[in-house]
Amino acid sequence: MPNYHTSKPKTETAIDRTVPDFPIAQVNDEDIYFNTHEAPEYLPEIESSVKDFVQFHHEQSGKPVVLVTSGGTTVPLENNTVRFIDNFSAGTRGATSAEYFLENGYAVIFLHREFSLLPYSRHYSHTTNNCFLDYMIEKHNKIEINEKYADQMLHVLRKYKAAQDSKSLLLIPFTTVNQYLYTLKSTSKLLQILEGKALFYLAAAVSDFFLPQSRMPQHKIQSQTSGKLIVDLEQVPKFLRRLVDNWAPSAMIVSFKLETDNSILIKKALGALTRYQHQLVIGNLLQTRKWEVVFIRPDGEQTWIRLNEEEQKNNVEIESLIIPGVMVEHKAWIESHKH
Amino acid sequence: MPNYHTSKPKTETAIDRTVPDFPIAQVNDEDIYFNTHEAPEYLPEIESSVKDFVQFHHEQSGKPVVLVTSGGTTVPLENNTVRFIDNFSAGTRGATSAEYFLENGYAVIFLHREFSLLPYSRHYSHTTNNCFLDYMIEKHNKIEINEKYADQMLHVLRKYKAAQDSKSLLLIPFTTVNQYLYTLKSTSKLLQILEGKALFYLAAAVSDFFLPQSRMPQHKIQSQTSGKLIVDLEQVPKFLRRLVDNWAPSAMIVSFKLETDNSILIKKALGALTRYQHQLVIGNLLQTRKWEVVFIRPDGEQTWIRLNEEEQKNNVEIESLIIPGVMVEHKAWIESHKH
Repeated sequence: MPNYHTSKPKTETAIDRTVPDFPIAQVNDEDIYFNTHEAPEYLPEIESSVKDFVQFHHEQSGKPVVLVTSGGTTVPLENNTVRFIDNFSAGTRGATSAEYFLENGYAVIFLHREFSLLPYSRHYSHTTNNCFLDYMIEKHNKIEINEKYADQMLHVLRKYKAAQDSKSLLLIPFTTVNQYLYTLKSTSKLLQILEGKALFYLAAAVSDFFLPQSRMPQHKIQSQTSGKLIVDLEQVPKFLRRLVDNWAPSAMIVSFKLETDNSILIKKALGALTRYQHQLVIGNLLQTRKWEVVFIRPDGEQTWIRLNEEEQKNNVEIESLIIPGVMVEHKAWIESHKH
Repeated sequence: MPNYHTSKPKTETAIDRTVPDFPIAQVNDEDIYFNTHEAPEYLPEIESSVKDFVQFHHEQSGKPVVLVTSGGTTVPLENNTVRFIDNFSAGTRGATSAEYFLENGYAVIFLHREFSLLPYSRHYSHTTNNCFLDYMIEKHNKIEINEKYADQMLHVLRKYKAAQDSKSLLLIPFTTVNQYLYTLKSTSKLLQILEGKALFYLAAAVSDFFLPQSRMPQHKIQSQTSGKLIVDLEQVPKFLRRLVDNWAPSAMIVSFKLETDNSILIKKALGALTRYQHQLVIGNLLQTRKWEVVFIRPDGEQTWIRLNEEEQKNNVEIESLIIPGVMVEHKAWIESHKH
């Protein structure tokens, strides 16, 4: 297996890692980041399962592979983490999208925040005051699914088992922004073999800010009698550009832009497309994200996807419209990248 | 129903709420807090179900009632919340303790962080890469529980249904520190009718810091080209003293102290007992909290509770030792508070 740790410091206990160990001419923010933050210990395991998964679909199933990222990243404020900054995200967009990709013939690597919503099981978790055991009853000394839920649950179970049996779903968890970045980097490189058939669908809510490891206190921050706590964060380097240029140069890349202020959404999306030179931004507002999104392309073209009232009433999931839209663009991308 | 909103501002849109609307002599940090932060909209609903629950156990079952708090509170950094500060807590201590209280004859109000672990269902959630559907198989067009898990799950289901059938478990969720504080205040007052038979078991990881509503930006904080983000937080007022003095003067109150630094644990626990004048602190270290805790009493007496190697190997839950220990103290408390 290739060595993905070339920019990782060799010593585990180094304190001052602000001086990068490569020629200064190549230095940029991303290099400095990976040089001053250690890879998660479990990364080689993940790399091994991603490699097997990609190889299987490359050589055997022939399916296109989409990396769906989902849920929010955390930014620990202490080394023995008690407090952290988090981004709001239950993972609904990612988990729902993953299902529609699977049903449309994709293999899915689901890179998700641990304990956020998962494809299929999402239908039965995170429901307010509804515990998993509420779906069950005892009958003749055996557990049965409550009749009220049995048919729909069997339908979901079949789809989940089909995804498993065809080896089309790989679940990979992360918690911190550091784990996310290292895993994204490794996975991207392993997807290169698929060239244009690899798709990145970056729905995770990745923190813009982080606390550098070198400035992180070892123990829980103590409250002072004086009261205040001031947290002084650095901006996370813009990894999307690195993804486009180096980690996944032949793949199609879709990113999301979530805002709460309508007036800046399109401008921010176009800014991202100019800065990162990728293929598509899906814009959405926190308040309306379940009913409308907008596809924004590098040439400035905007396509709104909206559920009408009828569809909203019938609980149609907007991802059932988003995924076919993305697939059209991905097909064209694959065609244009054939040898 | 009594009016719990006397310190709530009357107008929903007031911007400058830094001037309290009560005589200056009574002003303290807690009053200012409730005067400048609005109660959650759903609070009356919760008060109504807590009232019914308490009344049932007071007049009919005769069970003592414990309020178990569990999971971490969030501190939103924006009004339309995208980012927030969180406290690490899956809710294991609270959810596990609740089960042992139920099995030992208590009625339990489980005030928990939404989507954190719940009593009973905790055995099947938050397990890495194990989705709820993994416990199920299809057989003759019906869902069955995989044989491997069936016996144990039936055992858990029975205990869960018993708690439900005897109306002994009330689940109340919170997310933000503001929701937690308002719900704690309301619930405490409704528990007063039980006098000494009410027990507070405060296992939630409540934030020490918060961002006052008056300083909270309306929209998502935008990253600046300059990079840095500085978050300037205020200390959360010390509500435990208010709980002891005013909200629940006859109840027994147990708080938790979680540290990562062994050398300050006992000192911090004793400090809390002096400051708040309550009955018991259970101290634990993040690194060893599943195997050892220490009971610290106002007279300085310390009792360590530890799992031996055998018990650790057999996955004995330390809460099976903690709860009987707390019950001994609560029984003595009830005796000493009888008329």
